Amino acid sequence: MKLIIERAALLKALGHVQAVVERRNTIPILSNVLVKAEDGFVRLTATDLDMEIVEEAEARTEKPGVVTAPAHTLYEIARKLPEGAQVTLELSSDDPRMTLSAGRSRFNLPVLPPGDFPVMPSEDLAVTFSCAAGELARLIDKTRFAISTEETRYYLNGIHLHAAERDGRKTLRAVATDGHRLALAETGLPDGAAGMPAVIVPRKPIQELRRLLEDLDGDVEVSVSEGKIRFQLGAAVLTSKLIDGSFPDYERVIPRQNDKVMRVDRAPFAQAVDRVATISQEKSRSVKLALTEGQLVLTVNNPESGAASEELSADYSAEAISIGFNARYLLDVAGQIEGDEAVFEFADSGSPTRVTDSGDPDAEYVLMPLRV
Amino acid sequence: MKLIIERAALLKALGHVQAVVERRNTIPILSNVLVKAEDGFVRLTATDLDMEIVEEAEARTEKPGVVTAPAHTLYEIARKLPEGAQVTLELSSDDPRMTLSAGRSRFNLPVLPPGDFPVMPSEDLAVTFSCAAGELARLIDKTRFAISTEETRYYLNGIHLHAAERDGRKTLRAVATDGHRLALAETGLPDGAAGMPAVIVPRKPIQELRRLLEDLDGDVEVSVSEGKIRFQLGAAVLTSKLIDGSFPDYERVIPRQNDKVMRVDRAPFAQAVDRVATISQEKSRSVKLALTEGQLVLTVNNPESGAASEELSADYSAEAISIGFNARYLLDVAGQIEGDEAVFEFADSGSPTRVTDSGDPDAEYVLMPLRV
Repeated sequence: MKLIIERAALLKALGHVQAVVERRNTIPILSNVLVKAEDGFVRLTATDLDMEIVEEAEARTEKPGVVTAPAHTLYEIARKLPEGAQVTLELSSDDPRMTLSAGRSRFNLPVLPPGDFPVMPSEDLAVTFSCAAGELARLIDKTRFAISTEETRYYLNGIHLHAAERDGRKTLRAVATDGHRLALAETGLPDGAAGMPAVIVPRKPIQELRRLLEDLDGDVEVSVSEGKIRFQLGAAVLTSKLIDGSFPDYERVIPRQNDKVMRVDRAPFAQAVDRVATISQEKSRSVKLALTEGQLVLTVNNPESGAASEELSADYSAEAISIGFNARYLLDVAGQIEGDEAVFEFADSGSPTRVTDSGDPDAEYVLMPLRV
Repeated sequence: MKLIIERAALLKALGHVQAVVERRNTIPILSNVLVKAEDGFVRLTATDLDMEIVEEAEARTEKPGVVTAPAHTLYEIARKLPEGAQVTLELSSDDPRMTLSAGRSRFNLPVLPPGDFPVMPSEDLAVTFSCAAGELARLIDKTRFAISTEETRYYLNGIHLHAAERDGRKTLRAVATDGHRLALAETGLPDGAAGMPAVIVPRKPIQELRRLLEDLDGDVEVSVSEGKIRFQLGAAVLTSKLIDGSFPDYERVIPRQNDKVMRVDRAPFAQAVDRVATISQEKSRSVKLALTEGQLVLTVNNPESGAASEELSADYSAEAISIGFNARYLLDVAGQIEGDEAVFEFADSGSPTRVTDSGDPDAEYVLMPLRV
């Protein structure tokens, strides 16, 4: 195998695929990237057995071939090479190692047989549709903070992506919850997505997908079956296994009938929550919201570190209510609100509260209250 | 006590003093800052018993007084308040806690009696001189990376600051070493510094001093005695105990007679070292330098991760030599060289090497070789 590639092209493709590779691997070949030189391009593949990213980059292939070499080391070297460098990757019969050379730099890297590299079977996935990169990024941003990190609740360790319907409009909907809060965002259902299975995409491919979306304008082709999802983003293809479990019936817990409505300016609200949370207890991070006509008072009382209160104007005219929340959860939601106002819909101090965004009718959040 | 202060002034002063306060303290009052409201200003003091920073800031004092309150909490609140806020700090007979208020924000913070706050005795220090802030920063930057972190060699856990003489010129000299490398930087001896004791300033006050120097133009007043050093920087005063130990006779280990001289361009050298170090062993980080006429070849051989080599042009005409160094140490030195060239003076592959800076005759470095 021998190919010559621009450092920038190599760096970009390696940057994308190497992120899949875990720092520590009990199976040595999982530390490697599969490098396949073909006519006019090179294909790089990395995997952790649950997901894989494949990316193609333009390259001048002098001798087609395939090899696997350490992913993080290759990436570090590419990163440290000077801009504009022409990088040669070569595997010859003289040396069992792969040679990387550029200018007066030369590296010999250990390889492992490409035949041992676990490539994901590229089966046909049942449903394929196309989605704007920006919309996919929006669905992820507005929900992923609510993904559960509790390993025992494995069916909550991802984003539940499915076709849904609201008020007669068909949507592609993303939902995440950790049992304490829930986030939902949706977009018009793309053509061809109607028959998609309802799936749970694990956290890691969500993160990698979001990273790949940074570098992409245009559309993403999404293919999905019961067990697997694939995203084609320009030259990169991310394929992941799905979480084999049932996502809870989340519609039941969204309290769309709550009648005590508060509208509050998002930025001052978030800043005030952040300030009072300075003295909240590290574990519960509990903040009390006391609502009276036209006014919201945030308070924290912590026997160790004191007391804090903030007064804010709020559009509120229902009966007075006091309710507690985790400050972190309030800030997470406030951080995703695009409009000037956050709209809170309360039932009472013990019941779930719904939060919507004055700037995005296609997102909603549910927060479970804390006892304060 | 009652005072009103601009948020920016409070934030700056708190930012400086709170850095002294450790995250965890077995003595509760060490988590606090001493706040003393006087006519027209407030004085803030923080200490860890080994060093203290005192800073004054303009304030409108309505009622003089003194209190201690949690330093990090105060700083966090000041940081999160909106720009331009007027902050009131008050201790009244109504509440045992200190009240901080600004706009519609209000905090009640626990206090501890100011009488219990350990203030450093402000004894007269024997020698006082003045030094340009930029020069002091330069002495620190060019030496502190070599400070030892081995606690058992406590006498190496700081910068050795003393009056010295080189080629008939009197200097203020900073030296640090960890036994594997040594860094020395000096500047013309300031007036009044001739009689200063030779001292060892610990790492933490060095770091805090360097931070304070960021915000300062002009001169620093340095006062020093056998046991203590004080830096007056504008409105801030840093006082620290010194390390009670003898710094080794470092002059003996600086090989100023080494006769094999290599001049190499600093930037390409540093980049090449950084690249080959990608595959060096994590612990030794060993890189071999092989010198022949006009050429430097850097190599790393690591049984696990492969081999790397870099060729560089170098101005060298002595006999061929091979010598190994820790890549981290080479990069630390290269990072401080101001001139275009790093000048290496070798004796042989087993002896200390001296490195100088084509752009700064007042700095020199010694590196102990590794066996490669």
